[in-house]
Amino acid sequence: MAVATQSTEELCINSIRFLAVDAIEKSKSGHPGLPMGAAPMAFVLWDQFMRYNPKNPQWFNRDRFVLSAGHGSMLQYALLYLMGYDSVTIEDIKQFRQWGSKTPGHPENFVTAGVEVTTGPLGQGIANAVGLAVAEAHLAAKFNKPNATIVDHYTYVILGDGCNMEGISGEAASIAGHWGLGKLIALYDDNHISIDGSTDVAFTEDVSKRFESYGWHVLHVKDGNTDLAGIAKAIEEAKAVTDKPTMIKVTTTIGYGSPNKANTAGIHGAALGPDETALTRTNLGWNYAPFEIPQEVLNHTRKAVERGAGYETEWNKAFADYQAKYPQEAAEFSRLLSGKLPEGWDNVLPTYTTEDKAQPTRKHSEICLNKLGTILPELIGGSADLTHSNLTELKGAGDFQKGHFANRNIHFGVREHAMGAICNGIALHRSGLMPYGATFLIFTDYMRASIRLAALSEAGSIWVMTHDSIGQGEDGPTHQPIETLASLRAIPDLTVIRPADGNETSGAYKIAIEKSKENASTLLAFTRQNVPNLAGTSVAGVAKGAYVLVDSQGTPDIILIGTGSELSLAVGAAEKLTAAGKKVRVVSMPSTTLFDQQDAAYKESVLPKAVTKRLSVEAASSFGWHKYVGTEGDTVSIDTFGASAPGGTCLEKFGFTVDNVVAKAKALLG
Amino acid sequence: MAVATQSTEELCINSIRFLAVDAIEKSKSGHPGLPMGAAPMAFVLWDQFMRYNPKNPQWFNRDRFVLSAGHGSMLQYALLYLMGYDSVTIEDIKQFRQWGSKTPGHPENFVTAGVEVTTGPLGQGIANAVGLAVAEAHLAAKFNKPNATIVDHYTYVILGDGCNMEGISGEAASIAGHWGLGKLIALYDDNHISIDGSTDVAFTEDVSKRFESYGWHVLHVKDGNTDLAGIAKAIEEAKAVTDKPTMIKVTTTIGYGSPNKANTAGIHGAALGPDETALTRTNLGWNYAPFEIPQEVLNHTRKAVERGAGYETEWNKAFADYQAKYPQEAAEFSRLLSGKLPEGWDNVLPTYTTEDKAQPTRKHSEICLNKLGTILPELIGGSADLTHSNLTELKGAGDFQKGHFANRNIHFGVREHAMGAICNGIALHRSGLMPYGATFLIFTDYMRASIRLAALSEAGSIWVMTHDSIGQGEDGPTHQPIETLASLRAIPDLTVIRPADGNETSGAYKIAIEKSKENASTLLAFTRQNVPNLAGTSVAGVAKGAYVLVDSQGTPDIILIGTGSELSLAVGAAEKLTAAGKKVRVVSMPSTTLFDQQDAAYKESVLPKAVTKRLSVEAASSFGWHKYVGTEGDTVSIDTFGASAPGGTCLEKFGFTVDNVVAKAKALLG
Repeated sequence: MAVATQSTEELCINSIRFLAVDAIEKSKSGHPGLPMGAAPMAFVLWDQFMRYNPKNPQWFNRDRFVLSAGHGSMLQYALLYLMGYDSVTIEDIKQFRQWGSKTPGHPENFVTAGVEVTTGPLGQGIANAVGLAVAEAHLAAKFNKPNATIVDHYTYVILGDGCNMEGISGEAASIAGHWGLGKLIALYDDNHISIDGSTDVAFTEDVSKRFESYGWHVLHVKDGNTDLAGIAKAIEEAKAVTDKPTMIKVTTTIGYGSPNKANTAGIHGAALGPDETALTRTNLGWNYAPFEIPQEVLNHTRKAVERGAGYETEWNKAFADYQAKYPQEAAEFSRLLSGKLPEGWDNVLPTYTTEDKAQPTRKHSEICLNKLGTILPELIGGSADLTHSNLTELKGAGDFQKGHFANRNIHFGVREHAMGAICNGIALHRSGLMPYGATFLIFTDYMRASIRLAALSEAGSIWVMTHDSIGQGEDGPTHQPIETLASLRAIPDLTVIRPADGNETSGAYKIAIEKSKENASTLLAFTRQNVPNLAGTSVAGVAKGAYVLVDSQGTPDIILIGTGSELSLAVGAAEKLTAAGKKVRVVSMPSTTLFDQQDAAYKESVLPKAVTKRLSVEAASSFGWHKYVGTEGDTVSIDTFGASAPGGTCLEKFGFTVDNVVAKAKALLG
Repeated sequence: MAVATQSTEELCINSIRFLAVDAIEKSKSGHPGLPMGAAPMAFVLWDQFMRYNPKNPQWFNRDRFVLSAGHGSMLQYALLYLMGYDSVTIEDIKQFRQWGSKTPGHPENFVTAGVEVTTGPLGQGIANAVGLAVAEAHLAAKFNKPNATIVDHYTYVILGDGCNMEGISGEAASIAGHWGLGKLIALYDDNHISIDGSTDVAFTEDVSKRFESYGWHVLHVKDGNTDLAGIAKAIEEAKAVTDKPTMIKVTTTIGYGSPNKANTAGIHGAALGPDETALTRTNLGWNYAPFEIPQEVLNHTRKAVERGAGYETEWNKAFADYQAKYPQEAAEFSRLLSGKLPEGWDNVLPTYTTEDKAQPTRKHSEICLNKLGTILPELIGGSADLTHSNLTELKGAGDFQKGHFANRNIHFGVREHAMGAICNGIALHRSGLMPYGATFLIFTDYMRASIRLAALSEAGSIWVMTHDSIGQGEDGPTHQPIETLASLRAIPDLTVIRPADGNETSGAYKIAIEKSKENASTLLAFTRQNVPNLAGTSVAGVAKGAYVLVDSQGTPDIILIGTGSELSLAVGAAEKLTAAGKKVRVVSMPSTTLFDQQDAAYKESVLPKAVTKRLSVEAASSFGWHKYVGTEGDTVSIDTFGASAPGGTCLEKFGFTVDNVVAKAKALLG
C-alpha cells in the first residue's frame, strides 16, 4: 500500500489513522481498528458534505454526526482536531483516555464540544441519531415556511457490526423507516470483525436486506478503503432520496494499513504495539513522528473553519430574514433555543383538596401533561404502545407521522429501548425540545441502558412510568415492579419521583420540567389504581423530596414514611395509632433523590435522629429503605415477586393495608 | 360467519375462543383478541402436529410450545384444558387471573404444568424458544446415534406484532438464523393490531423479508382465520426444511368472531362485555353456556391423552434400546435429566494461599469455569462478543455452530438481551443443562429483563459478569458500573456474588452450580484488574454471604465490610488502624443475598448490634449499604458516574485507597 506520493486526501485520511494509532499507542488503551478502517468514509463526510462550524460547535443548523460505534472515539477526536475545533487540541489527543482529559475512552457530549451524544454502549448512537432526525423533522415542519427555511440539516451516523447486532438498533431502524426520515444517513462500517473474531462466528445475516425490510434506502460501497469517489457518490445518492433514511454499507478493512493485524480482532480493541506501529508507518508511507500532522493536511482540513463561519453567517442572514417575516415564530424559536420556560408556565399545574375525587396518579399525570403540553409546545413524546394505559396522549397535538412531523404524539411501537434512546436524541438536539417516553414501570428494564445514558449524557428526558406496583394487578409478576424503583433510584443523576396524589403529581411535573431545561432527567412513577387526594400534600413539598404531612404534638413516638399510593395507608395508620394514644408523624417521601440533596438541618427537621422508630410504607422492595428507617426501623414492603390477581387483592395479600401498617408500627413501638 | 352446523375442528376452535371470551368476561380482565384470532393455528398445531403427553407434561422428548405473546394466556390454558392436562381444569379456567389460581394473567411455567417458559414481557418467548431449540440441537448432537435417536423434538412458538417490534426478538432471530435451527418453527400471528391501534401507526416494516434476511425459511398463510389446511400445509413445509428455522406469517383477524370489536384495539386487552359476548356467540353460532364445552369437542381433543401416552411409551422403548446399546451415554443422559451433580464435582474447585499470585477474579473465574466444564458436560454458554475479556471460553469444548451443535462455547454476538433469554430457554428445557451468559457487568442493563425472568421463572441460569467497577478503567463512565450491583441485588430470588479473590471465586461457583441445579439463578461479578489472594478467605465463607475475615481481641471498635476487589483495602486499612491501637474487625461480604438468608444468631455473630461503627468499602453505589452499616455507619462508595482513565487512577481518584478507608474509619471513630 505504500505510496511514494500521496494525494492531499490520502494524507488527510492517514492523519486520522495515525492520530488514532499514536494516541492509542501512547495511552496503551483504545480501539484503533475502526478509526483506521473508517477514516476514508469519515473524511469524505466531514470534508465534502457535513456543514458545521468548528468555532461554534453549538451552531443550531449544523449537521449532526454520531459515532455509534463509540469505541472508535479517536476517529471523532481526530476529525475535531483536524477540522479546527478548539475543544480538541493535539495536547488533548496526547491525553487520550487519561484522567480529566477532553478525549475520554468513548465520546461524551458533556466533555467534548463537537460531540453530540454519548456513545459506547452499542446501538445507542444510531437510535440517538433517529431522535436527532426526529427533532430536525419536527422543527422543520413547525418553523420552516415556503419562503423561509431555518431548520435544515442532516444527521449522519457511523455504526458498526456491533451496533447492528444489538436489538435497539433494529428497533430504531424500524421506526425510522416507518417515519421515512429522509435526512438520516447511516454509514455502516462493514468490516467483518468483532471482538470475538470474524463476524462469521455470530453475524451472518444480510444487513442490507434487513434495512430494506424496514423501508430504508440501501446502498453499498464495495471498497470503502480507497474508493473515495464511491463514498461521495453514495452520500450524494443518499441525500437525493428524501422520503427514506439511507443506510450505506461501506465495506472496509478493520485496522487498514497494519500489515499483520488488519482484518483481525487483534486490532479491534488494543494498541498496535511499537513494532506493528512502525510497520504500519512504513506500509502506509507515513514518515511523520507521532502526533505530527503535515502542514499540507492542516492547510486543507482547517478550511472547515472558514467554511463553517460562512454557513453560520448565511444561516444568521436567513434567520434575520425569517425574523422580519415571521416575528412571532422567530421569537418562539429563539425562546426554544434559549432553554427558557415561558413566564408563569407552572401556573397551569392543578392543585387539589381532599374533596376532589380519588383518581389514579396516571390520570393526574395525563391532566398535567395536557395542561403543560398546551403552554409548552416543546413537550413532545409518547408511549411504547401503551398510550391509553399510560395516558400520555397530548390531546389535539396530532400524531407524529410521515408527512405530519409538526405533530407531537409519538407512537414508538413496542420498542422501549429505542424509545429511550430516541428521546435522548431529541433532547440532545439541544433545541429546547423536551421529550418524554412512557411505558409500564416494570418495562424500564427493557430501556434501562437508555435511562442511564439520559442521566449520564445530561439529556433531560422525562420518563413517564405507570402501573407502578403490584397494584397493577391481574397481569401478574411479569408486569409488577418490585425492585424497579430501587434499581432506578440507584442511578446517579436521575431524579425519581413517585407522587401520592394530585398535588404531588403537579409537584412532580414541576420538577421534571425544570430539570429537563437544566438537562437533567426525571423518572415519574404513577399508579394504575385510584388514590385519594390527601390533606397537606403540596407542590412545594415534592421539591424537598420529603416533608412532614401529619405531625404529633411534641417528639413523635414513631415516624411513618409513605410514598405514592401507600402514603394514604400511612395516613390511615397514623389516625388509628393516634387514637390509640401514640404520637405519630407521617412523612411523605415522593423522592429519595431530592431528599438526599437537602441540607442536614432540613433532613433533621423531617427525620430527627432522636426518633429511631421509623416505618416505611411502599409497595415495592425494601432495598434502599434502611437509609431512612435506620437500624431500629422497619419496612412495609415486598421482597418477593408479585402475583396475578386484582390489584386490590394483591395489595391486601402482600400486607399493604392500614391494619398491617398499624400492626408493624405497634411491633416497632414494643 | 354463523354456521348452522360446524365441523368438529370448528367446534374445537370455537371452544378455545369461548373459553377465552368467557374466562376474561368472568375475571373482567385479560386479552381475548389473540386467543380468538390465533385459535385456528394453535388448534391445528396442537391437534395435528405437536407431540406431548398431557398426563406427563414433563416427558422429556415432548415438542416445546411457547406462547411468546403471553398476554394471550387464555389460548394456552384453553389448549391445556382441552387436551387433557390435569394442571388446568375448567374450574381453574373460571379462576383466570385470580389469587392463587393455576391460570395467571400471563403463562408462568412455575405455576402451570404444561407451560414451558414464563412469557408476557414481549419478545422474551421467541428468544426462550431459540434457547429450547439450542438445547434440543445440542443434546441431539451429543446423544443421538446413527441407529438410536432419543432426542428429537420441535420447538413451536406463537408470537405477535408486539414480539416482533421488540429488539430482543430481532437479536434472537438473527442468531437462530445463523445457527440454522431447523426444528424451530415460529407462527407469527399477523393481526395488524397492537394496543395503540392499527400497526400502521408504528409498525409497517416487511417482517417476512426481515426474517429472510436473518436466514430463516419464511412462509405465509393468507387466511389464518379459516384456512386450516393452509396452516397444516405450512407447518408441514416448515418441518421439511431442516437447516433453517421457519417463520410462518399467519394473517389473522384479532378478536375473530366479535361483530363489533374484531380487528380493533378494543378487543386486544379488555373483556368484550356482556352485549358483545352475546353477539359473538350468535355470530359464531355458539349455543353453549359459559365454560360449557360440547362433548364432541372433548371426545376429539382428549384423544391427545392416548396419543401422548403412546408417544411416551414409544420413546421409553427407544430409550431402553439406547440404554442397551450405549449404557454409558444413557447413564449420563439419565444423570442430566435427574438434575444430580456427579459425586465430588466440587473437588475440582481450586483453593489458594496468600503465596499465590495476584490475578483478576475474572481469571479465577476462567479457571473455575474450565475445571467445572470438564467434569460437568452440562455447562454450556458463552459471551456476548467479549469471550476473551470475560474469559469464558471452555477450552477444548469447541464452538456451538451449525453442524457442530455438540460443542459448548456459544458465541451470542453483541446481543446481550437475547443471550439472557436464550440461556433461560436452555435452562428451562429442563434437561439438566446449565447455561451461562457473560458480558461486562454494566451491560446487564441491556439484558435486565431476562435476568429478572431467569429468577422469576426459576431458570437456573448463571450470569458471569466481568469488569465490575470503575477499575474497568479507560473505557470510561459508559462502561463502568456504579449502581449496577445495587440494581441487581434488589432483584428477588437472584443471588449476586462478588468474590474477593481465588478462594471466594471458587466459593461463588460452588453456589452458582448448586443453585442452578435447584433452578435458581446466580450472578457473579468479577474484576478486570488483579487482586491479591487474602488470608482467611474461604469457599465456606461465601456460602454464608458474609463472614469474619480479620478479628480483634474483644469487641471491635469498628467493623470494616469489604466486597470483591475492595476487600483488600479493608484488610490493609485494618492493619493500619490496628497498628494505631484500634480494635478492628474485617468482614468479607461477597453476597448480601446469601447473608440476608442466614439466621439471626449468625448475623449477630458477624455484625453485632453493639458495634455501630461500621464502614462498607465497595467501588460502587452506596445504595443499599445502610442496611449493613446502620445509622451510625458510613460507606466508602461512589455515587456519581465514573471517568475515563486507567483503572488504578480511577480507583484512587474516587477514594478507593487504604488511606482513604483509614481516614473514613477514623472519622467514624471520632
